Amino acid sequence: MDWHGPFIAVDWGTTNRRAWRIGADGTVQDSLADGGGITSVPAAGFDAEAAALRARLGDLPMLLGGMIGSDRGWRNVAYVPCPADARSLAAGICWIDPRTGIVPGVSQKGPQVPEVMRGEEVQIFGALAGNTIPPDSLVCHPGTHAKWVQLEGGRIARFATWMTGEVFALISRHSILASELEGTAQPGPAFAAGVAASADRDPLGHLFALRAGRLLGTPLPDAPSYASGLLIGAEVRAALARMGDGSPYLIGRPDLCALYAAAIAEVRGTGVQPDQIIDGEWAFLTGLRAIIRELA
Amino acid sequence: MDWHGPFIAVDWGTTNRRAWRIGADGTVQDSLADGGGITSVPAAGFDAEAAALRARLGDLPMLLGGMIGSDRGWRNVAYVPCPADARSLAAGICWIDPRTGIVPGVSQKGPQVPEVMRGEEVQIFGALAGNTIPPDSLVCHPGTHAKWVQLEGGRIARFATWMTGEVFALISRHSILASELEGTAQPGPAFAAGVAASADRDPLGHLFALRAGRLLGTPLPDAPSYASGLLIGAEVRAALARMGDGSPYLIGRPDLCALYAAAIAEVRGTGVQPDQIIDGEWAFLTGLRAIIRELA
Repeated sequence: MDWHGPFIAVDWGTTNRRAWRIGADGTVQDSLADGGGITSVPAAGFDAEAAALRARLGDLPMLLGGMIGSDRGWRNVAYVPCPADARSLAAGICWIDPRTGIVPGVSQKGPQVPEVMRGEEVQIFGALAGNTIPPDSLVCHPGTHAKWVQLEGGRIARFATWMTGEVFALISRHSILASELEGTAQPGPAFAAGVAASADRDPLGHLFALRAGRLLGTPLPDAPSYASGLLIGAEVRAALARMGDGSPYLIGRPDLCALYAAAIAEVRGTGVQPDQIIDGEWAFLTGLRAIIRELA
Repeated sequence: MDWHGPFIAVDWGTTNRRAWRIGADGTVQDSLADGGGITSVPAAGFDAEAAALRARLGDLPMLLGGMIGSDRGWRNVAYVPCPADARSLAAGICWIDPRTGIVPGVSQKGPQVPEVMRGEEVQIFGALAGNTIPPDSLVCHPGTHAKWVQLEGGRIARFATWMTGEVFALISRHSILASELEGTAQPGPAFAAGVAASADRDPLGHLFALRAGRLLGTPLPDAPSYASGLLIGAEVRAALARMGDGSPYLIGRPDLCALYAAAIAEVRGTGVQPDQIIDGEWAFLTGLRAIIRELA
């Protein structure tokens, strides 16, 4: 199988998926993004979905990453244990057929705290391959389940997960604060005030003031940003304390990275440099190409 | 209106309600409990509901507390500001008619952090009137929105709210951990391990290990109790740091009080004495009778 020519890259998540046709020179030639995440596909439907992606983007080799390799996806692909690098990911690919492979996730086992990731590892090795992060660095990947990752010698040495994003989404949708939290969190004064209020690392002891303030006629301006600052600020303080107080690199969705950069700047007193913020989509595609280079 | 004879007491919450006929000697003569909380009653339906309660329990004076006095209830009863006591609550009763009154909640306004409570205040003044808590003490009322209350000279001086209970319920029902968290949290080794893991006050950075452990074949025993210990432990640590490190009294649902007592014992290194745990139902009824005694 020729992995030196064009190929199809797929980032197949729980609720969404994106796919690209990548040329032999590494450029994006075509792409799609839709809501066809793994939970929208019946267990026996992934072969047909892959064929449809090829019908749309070209009859090419296909490399996939993300939750498509989970127990709810196409195959339950075994995790590669820490320390992990692009080579061990390549060796752990689950081959559906010789031209269709699913990249494994990464696990951390005892005596360390158990941890797993699926998808973030591709972006991290992309950022490394693109020389945008040093081989020894602290990386934060914001998201529903934010990952903080310590790299040592270009390998994922250890990592930890914060459920901040999911808890913020649950509170915004389902809690008594739902009506206060309509709108989108943005970096700015209210977000910074939330980060400052997270100094005692007690976000669940400060959120109710948003409701009480409105009931008493003293609503806080921009409650979604304040609440986001409270939760992300508490995460950043805890993660820097646990993972090492270096200046972290951020990889992921630009809007989330901007919030985390603002929180890190507030907590550390030093701004995050623009080149420490790496676009997740670029990193994912660069990571798949780095893994392909490791195929013998 | 004769408030010295028997009366009907109603604890009317968001999703449930309880009502009792209390004799002139203070004994419970009859009671009911059902799911007829305020959200199940249309705005114009409360008069009929009250008439039905009287048809069931007796044609008597009726005193009501809880969310029935909120903007979604029968009347939006103005909060009584801190410092508050049974006398100021009695003075703030909203009279639907001379024999039907709704007890107000308590508010805390600037320069302090805005806070509100509705229902817990009746229980607190009941515990005070029953001489089960000293006039200067720290009280914790566990629940969906747990209240930590500093009493000074028998008055509510200040208080704070933790959203621990609601966040735990949201995570248990809707998060990726839902399948791990089926079952009921209990005091015991797993709960104590969660409380111990909350020492860094970073519960959202430890919860995901429950899922990763199961995926990696090393599931933690009794995950609901561990997760509950993580969240309640973090609350107890934060609340003792913020509200004063005294030995708190617990008022509320016995099952929740048992969890909080276990967490407080673990955090403080000193057990909570059995007489520091006060049944919320007894406290509510005793509190309404204390408020009635303040009616001129």
